[in-house]
Amino acid sequence: MTTTTAFSTEDVEFIRDFRIMGQFGSTENGGVDRQAATTPDGEQRRWLAGLLEGRGFTVTSDRVGNQWGLYEAVPGAPFVVVGSHMDSQPTAGRYDGAYGVLAAAHAAFRLVEQWNAAGPDGRPRFNIAVVNWFNEEGSRFKPSMMGSSVYTGKLALETALATTDAAGVSVRDALDAIGCRGDYEGPDAAFCAEIHIEQGRSMEREGITIGLVHSNWAANKYEFVVNGEQAHTGSTVIADRKDALLGASMMVVAARELADRFPGVMHTSVGQLTVYPNSPVVVPSRVNLLLDLRSADEGVLAEADALLHRRITEIERMANVTVERSHSHSWPVTPYQPEGVELAAKVAADLGLENKPVMTLAGHDSTNMKDIVPTVMLFVPSVDGISHNEHEYTTDEDIVAGLAMLTEVTNRLCNGALEPVSTAGETAP
Amino acid sequence: MTTTTAFSTEDVEFIRDFRIMGQFGSTENGGVDRQAATTPDGEQRRWLAGLLEGRGFTVTSDRVGNQWGLYEAVPGAPFVVVGSHMDSQPTAGRYDGAYGVLAAAHAAFRLVEQWNAAGPDGRPRFNIAVVNWFNEEGSRFKPSMMGSSVYTGKLALETALATTDAAGVSVRDALDAIGCRGDYEGPDAAFCAEIHIEQGRSMEREGITIGLVHSNWAANKYEFVVNGEQAHTGSTVIADRKDALLGASMMVVAARELADRFPGVMHTSVGQLTVYPNSPVVVPSRVNLLLDLRSADEGVLAEADALLHRRITEIERMANVTVERSHSHSWPVTPYQPEGVELAAKVAADLGLENKPVMTLAGHDSTNMKDIVPTVMLFVPSVDGISHNEHEYTTDEDIVAGLAMLTEVTNRLCNGALEPVSTAGETAP
Repeated sequence: MTTTTAFSTEDVEFIRDFRIMGQFGSTENGGVDRQAATTPDGEQRRWLAGLLEGRGFTVTSDRVGNQWGLYEAVPGAPFVVVGSHMDSQPTAGRYDGAYGVLAAAHAAFRLVEQWNAAGPDGRPRFNIAVVNWFNEEGSRFKPSMMGSSVYTGKLALETALATTDAAGVSVRDALDAIGCRGDYEGPDAAFCAEIHIEQGRSMEREGITIGLVHSNWAANKYEFVVNGEQAHTGSTVIADRKDALLGASMMVVAARELADRFPGVMHTSVGQLTVYPNSPVVVPSRVNLLLDLRSADEGVLAEADALLHRRITEIERMANVTVERSHSHSWPVTPYQPEGVELAAKVAADLGLENKPVMTLAGHDSTNMKDIVPTVMLFVPSVDGISHNEHEYTTDEDIVAGLAMLTEVTNRLCNGALEPVSTAGETAP
Repeated sequence: MTTTTAFSTEDVEFIRDFRIMGQFGSTENGGVDRQAATTPDGEQRRWLAGLLEGRGFTVTSDRVGNQWGLYEAVPGAPFVVVGSHMDSQPTAGRYDGAYGVLAAAHAAFRLVEQWNAAGPDGRPRFNIAVVNWFNEEGSRFKPSMMGSSVYTGKLALETALATTDAAGVSVRDALDAIGCRGDYEGPDAAFCAEIHIEQGRSMEREGITIGLVHSNWAANKYEFVVNGEQAHTGSTVIADRKDALLGASMMVVAARELADRFPGVMHTSVGQLTVYPNSPVVVPSRVNLLLDLRSADEGVLAEADALLHRRITEIERMANVTVERSHSHSWPVTPYQPEGVELAAKVAADLGLENKPVMTLAGHDSTNMKDIVPTVMLFVPSVDGISHNEHEYTTDEDIVAGLAMLTEVTNRLCNGALEPVSTAGETAP
């Protein structure tokens, strides 16, 4: 989108801060490598803390390493939680998560400035908390969305802290190493808002600036272990082989065949696959892999799931292996609160921003938050839909428009736009 | 084979030493993990050195870490080189390679004793060198058969020493760390003999005790790199994906289909496959894999090779990836010297051991040695054909029979049985 937008001073400042942000864990190809609780993650957190503290926010870490920037305009009132995550996949892009945290910080700065300028009459009904959720990506420590899962009570704190990475380092030790494990419990949330890049290209294709997320795709995620038996790759006759890698490869191909069978409404993938002993002349005895099925349609997902398991039984026979489902994790299609989507649509219209309702295919921290408080989830476009890739890109015009959108949504949430009518009525003029 | 063989004192001593040998790098399941130039490899080498020195052998390491035990019965005469390798795959069996080295040592002990007992008239025509070849397996440092490749001039010493393992440690540094890099050039070889387990089950099935190896299967070994592009496993639409793991998986399946197309004469495998970035929610951008085609028939191999490359072109299109052949290594069907096979057949008949000519499907150090000197390669059976597996097993009866066979073959080689007639004539009675 090549528009001739004249950016305000505040917008320029935001763009400048976003450029700085991309330096933490920067890679040669213009991306970032900033996995959860690594050194660059710690450095970036300290930078964000300085930015927030400079604007009068109190910065603290909770017990699972979520970083909070709190501004209490109304002592004792609950908070509107706004933010995303700053950890990244290995060799990732600069926008995923990071944009949402910085936009939340700058939205909060703008609102605090407005409140201060307006004097006592301009005080909001709710306080504001900027959040940087810990380990949304799940690449170093599984599962993903760890910080928001603990905050929303879906994952036990101790389970999260005891989780180890591939090198055996625990979340607890990794957070301690970067000085980011605190004893804060987290704020009392009333509402939540998050903005993120789309990571697809439907908005770009239709010239949409703001996506109003109304629900998420359903997903079934499996950890499979394929068990075979070590043998000599040269001398062992084919009929005697129990090749775990052959079985695993057939599963990778089967996953893609399922996506092809339900075009457009089913996404499948194997992102992680690890071979043992992974030696040139040894038939692999074990392969661990993560296989995901995702769909906008729960009926399709159930059908694909049954087909997958039937296919796995065939693969066990064909490759002479056994397949074990060691872990699974699934979620249904769930809606964001319709009143939140409505509010966002009204704000977008008021700001003159092209918008449309969208679903989110990826998981986000707001997917957890919406289960405890009314939550507004917003998207800005991704150029060519590229994500989890160093070439991830969103135009400055779009990140600035998204910031304006998030600022106004947060403003209205802070002013009680989604409060139940009875309560709102009490304070209405 | 449950026979009621009464073992001699020397046989019992050999079996006892073989049990001790299996303790170096032993695993819980009765196997060994003794990759090249690791601590257990170094410990076992020191143990072997003590064993050889105790019998009057001079022990030394050459510049690529081949370990030599030399016995000069005839000062200045060339050597009959007898041995195999003591390194193993990760979680491997106790017989592969180790049996051949210990059998060589005990064969040499028996011959030296005979020569000493016989006095000056019993002196052989050639000296004897027991060898433990460095890094035959190639699991830690590629390529396999490294030590014998350097000794036979097929691989440059400096190239071998500069080779690094997955952790970036060079062969030079790994050998220095276990104190096994010497400055010896290696002996002047006249002939060679090696005994090894079959690693297949054709001999066991036919009740054969000694396999007379007459040639090796041909092989084409490839290192492929499949290049795709990182993307989000959830949100990226299927048509936009360039999934390197999907392409690699199709190649694994294609390799097996080739083996099925030429039953019995074609073995295929992918033993090693590494995924990048190997993260749960990232479509893999790169996969490195090693794919081998092996056949007893060079025509079949050539046909399979053409089919594989045609299939790869299809896979590039179907998976939207590119496949790059970064390295390849191949060898034809090559014969062991027929006079060596003949000699071995005569010895087996003289000893009353059931024998048959066989091909070797796996590579061995003798495959290198046969290209510079007449070489005899012998097999003993593998129970159930199991190899590169902790459950690798050969009966005590068979390892003892193999030792007797190797002793007599080596004896005749030392006495000039394969010398050209003109030379042999000079010393004939």
